Amino acid sequence: MDEQFFEDLKEKIQPYFEGVNSCHDFSHTERVKNLALQIGEKEGADLEIIEIAALLHDIARKEQDESKGKICHASRGVEMARKLLEEQKYNPEKIEKIIHCIATHRFRDEKNSPKSKEAKILFDADKLDSIGAVGLLRAASFSGHIGAKIHNTLEEAKNGKDYSKEDTVFREFLIKLSKIKDKCMTETGRRIAESRHHFMEDFFDKVNKEFIGEQ
Amino acid sequence: MDEQFFEDLKEKIQPYFEGVNSCHDFSHTERVKNLALQIGEKEGADLEIIEIAALLHDIARKEQDESKGKICHASRGVEMARKLLEEQKYNPEKIEKIIHCIATHRFRDEKNSPKSKEAKILFDADKLDSIGAVGLLRAASFSGHIGAKIHNTLEEAKNGKDYSKEDTVFREFLIKLSKIKDKCMTETGRRIAESRHHFMEDFFDKVNKEFIGEQ
Repeated sequence: MDEQFFEDLKEKIQPYFEGVNSCHDFSHTERVKNLALQIGEKEGADLEIIEIAALLHDIARKEQDESKGKICHASRGVEMARKLLEEQKYNPEKIEKIIHCIATHRFRDEKNSPKSKEAKILFDADKLDSIGAVGLLRAASFSGHIGAKIHNTLEEAKNGKDYSKEDTVFREFLIKLSKIKDKCMTETGRRIAESRHHFMEDFFDKVNKEFIGEQ
Repeated sequence: MDEQFFEDLKEKIQPYFEGVNSCHDFSHTERVKNLALQIGEKEGADLEIIEIAALLHDIARKEQDESKGKICHASRGVEMARKLLEEQKYNPEKIEKIIHCIATHRFRDEKNSPKSKEAKILFDADKLDSIGAVGLLRAASFSGHIGAKIHNTLEEAKNGKDYSKEDTVFREFLIKLSKIKDKCMTETGRRIAESRHHFMEDFFDKVNKEFIGEQ
């Protein structure tokens, strides 16, 4: 597709991201797109499918938030993406490939798992955005939003509760973010996850040292 | 002083930190104390003065916040600290040394500058807690609290406004945190500041790479 197609698409979807929280705003979509394209290149995938699927994967996030989770942004995103692409008279076969990526990017049970290479790449890129340096900023921003502390001990983190003072970045790392490296579906995704995981481990080593007055 | 004195003092001041924001809660006081003691040891300072001054330096922070800044936590802290220490029948000469540290830890104009070694060390330790890995967590938590984005471009950061979507951790680093290394008053403080500064620079390099899909 030409550059203009992507520019038009980006302009069309902008309103869907207005007011969405900082973890899933349009900059998240752009990062996922950039990373998915990098992984796609290494994995020899269809970059056009990846680029469009990445741009559209979270267009129903606002509806999910506003419905307090009643609407699933993956299922609703599929409907919205299909409508958008059909209006553009986009190739019907390719639409199905894009739809598969969007429908499965949230993947929580086997029947909804990413089957195509492009869907696996979108899944990985989306997960990878929650780890590494950006992942730390996202998690810290969220903890600030809910009024949690900036850090806690290993013991507190293990026993902390969601949306509490103990729901810190460190807890998010221990119970959730540290497992992402084992969930990636492509080799390139796994490699990037390992690297970002180590970056986070080093970060928390530094935090723990600073807490006792070292460095 | 014996261990019990410090334990009693810590217990007495706990209520002053209840409800204080995560950047200045009691864990900030503990980190400042730990770091000030480390610096004090290297600079050959009076560690007893440092430990008590560090524990008490922010006891009026809650009053400052509740008065929306009308009360200065350094001036009010001086009154509260003096009362606390006199009640303990603490050595009057040492009280004056501690008071000087608390009165000048905020240091914004020459007439209120830290003159003693211990006061300079408290000033440095307090500033150093806003940089490095902990500084990043503090700034990111604050940006989440005010609903800012997680990151922005150099251009946006330079033109951003306080308490806006552009008031990101990166902006805080560019306009404020990057200058702390030039403000430190002790050699050990400056050395730690340089190291924490480079840690933050590396962190933002990583963030900027992740934004375009690298690593």
